Amino acid sequence: MKKLDHPVPPGGTIGIVGGGQLGRMLAMAAARLGLQTCIYNDTPDAPAFQVTEQAMDAPYDDLDMLASFAEVCDAVTFEFENLPAHAIAHLAERVWVAPGAHALAMTQDRLTEKTFVEKLGLKTAPFFDVTSADQARAAFAKLNGRGILKTRRFGYDGKGQTKVASADETVKAFESFKGAPSILEGFVDFSCEVSVIAARGHDGAFAAYDPPENVHENHILRRSTVPSRLSAAQVDDAKAIARKIADALDYVGVLAVELFVGQDGSLLVNEIAPRVHNSGHWTIEACQCSQFEQHIRAVAGWPLGDASRHADVVMENIIGAEADAWEALAKTGALHLYGKAQARPGRKMGHVTRLKDKS
Amino acid sequence: MKKLDHPVPPGGTIGIVGGGQLGRMLAMAAARLGLQTCIYNDTPDAPAFQVTEQAMDAPYDDLDMLASFAEVCDAVTFEFENLPAHAIAHLAERVWVAPGAHALAMTQDRLTEKTFVEKLGLKTAPFFDVTSADQARAAFAKLNGRGILKTRRFGYDGKGQTKVASADETVKAFESFKGAPSILEGFVDFSCEVSVIAARGHDGAFAAYDPPENVHENHILRRSTVPSRLSAAQVDDAKAIARKIADALDYVGVLAVELFVGQDGSLLVNEIAPRVHNSGHWTIEACQCSQFEQHIRAVAGWPLGDASRHADVVMENIIGAEADAWEALAKTGALHLYGKAQARPGRKMGHVTRLKDKS
Repeated sequence: MKKLDHPVPPGGTIGIVGGGQLGRMLAMAAARLGLQTCIYNDTPDAPAFQVTEQAMDAPYDDLDMLASFAEVCDAVTFEFENLPAHAIAHLAERVWVAPGAHALAMTQDRLTEKTFVEKLGLKTAPFFDVTSADQARAAFAKLNGRGILKTRRFGYDGKGQTKVASADETVKAFESFKGAPSILEGFVDFSCEVSVIAARGHDGAFAAYDPPENVHENHILRRSTVPSRLSAAQVDDAKAIARKIADALDYVGVLAVELFVGQDGSLLVNEIAPRVHNSGHWTIEACQCSQFEQHIRAVAGWPLGDASRHADVVMENIIGAEADAWEALAKTGALHLYGKAQARPGRKMGHVTRLKDKS
Repeated sequence: MKKLDHPVPPGGTIGIVGGGQLGRMLAMAAARLGLQTCIYNDTPDAPAFQVTEQAMDAPYDDLDMLASFAEVCDAVTFEFENLPAHAIAHLAERVWVAPGAHALAMTQDRLTEKTFVEKLGLKTAPFFDVTSADQARAAFAKLNGRGILKTRRFGYDGKGQTKVASADETVKAFESFKGAPSILEGFVDFSCEVSVIAARGHDGAFAAYDPPENVHENHILRRSTVPSRLSAAQVDDAKAIARKIADALDYVGVLAVELFVGQDGSLLVNEIAPRVHNSGHWTIEACQCSQFEQHIRAVAGWPLGDASRHADVVMENIIGAEADAWEALAKTGALHLYGKAQARPGRKMGHVTRLKDKS
């Protein structure tokens, strides 16, 4: 595995695997720091291609192209966690990669992730391994009547998950996943959802943003509001959870930890995303150093930036055809559009951030 | 002259003439809005080329290339005001150009600019046309013993200007300019320098940022601080001056008005820059809509953004070899580096913005 011997200097090149909106905003943050970027994407129409000079369009498992990519980059990072393990390893032999293969592998599999979280002494919803119809039935019996069956791998925005309220439904859901290894999670009656966006530097330094309170609609993030309704003590606890996870993974970069807030105020880890996160987009306007710049700083071995917040803020996603109202939306706040030509239903087309004076 | 019939929609292309740091930051602001950019620069190593897919490298008076450029753009703007008038006209016949040829012509010539300002009833330092050695002597005699001789055209960062304290020095300075048409300005004993960064929309809407207080060293901006020491009434007056100028020029886009604050508190117009301005870089972090986004919004016919400020802020330029200390600087604030390979003395390499809670 390649190490980073010294920080990537201005003028150096950060490779970003994945050219969607996260890759695009990462590239723009790198440019602010005087760093160049090379975007690697498996289709030619990537939003991030519009904001950089250097781009490669090839399959994510094309080892020759990945090697060429590694050749022009001083450090490589990812906008998503689902690159095949052998492709990540192929890159990591050639160039400094952050977050590392270990952290990516850990979060690619819900069972591994939840087991890891539990071993750290952190709370999660109850969860059970499901690899057969019998196991599905047995797992459901251990819940209090409601659960969610999720495929262990490749889920996002609600894809690969189904709510279940009986053993029969659990078996049916498992069959609809064509028998893909899954986990059954107990349903959590949460009072709200929050997330912690945090960064761990190459030197182990840690910085966390104030946790936003998140509202989802149809499994897609609708709105993040900061400050959340968490108490100061809960905010500290939430940040400490993120730090425990980041330290245990020897993590370098930004990670997001999604948390359920139980009716009793307890914080349950729902999911770890080893990357910048939709619920952290408000940091572009409300903080001196955004999550995107923070991630680039960490990956490039630079000192972390200031994560403190100097305004209250609400971020709302613009989904599908909502983007047609761009002119009206531009009047209401800081409008971000991702350069996507087609507004398919459920597709994240942009977001709007609205600031107000800090309360 | 081409008009703008409807706002440039997301996915449309804004042409930017000039690929330095201003063009670079304009391109990044356009990208946030989902707009594409094409950068036109007369050398191939332009900082702005690094942050866009579309770029053209050709002389600023290459009419064929300018026509090709106009062809791919839905609107065109400038990062600097010194494009030759016939080149601007050539563009304006083919594509919507903002700010317009009239505003650019007005600010390209110090005599025209100062005369225009005076006719608006605004204060300036006393100034005199100097086109001969005799005129230089006669002009100096009208001052109170100190003045600055400036070439009428193509001056920036102190280039083409010399302080003079006698008629002989004035003649010598005029000769050192090789007889270029000049103006002699009376020396103003100001208490401080401020600037107003303001925007006027396609629809005549107006928005001004809080005026920063500016400190120059060796004729180059060193530091901008907001809030300035201006009183609330002076802030209103300063913004009103910018509005008067913008309205009189039927201006579209961001403009900067540099003001001297006299010992008696009066505001004297020093210079008008028909573009985004170094003393407005702090708006990236401290405002919901930066000067760069504001300019792109105006040029594209979009509604103006919110120019209110939600933090106190100091912006410092990084000049020449100071950029070598990038790692230390990155610890102190939001670091911006412009992607310039060579750190020549006096060259603006980047800036650092430091926020604190609003006072």
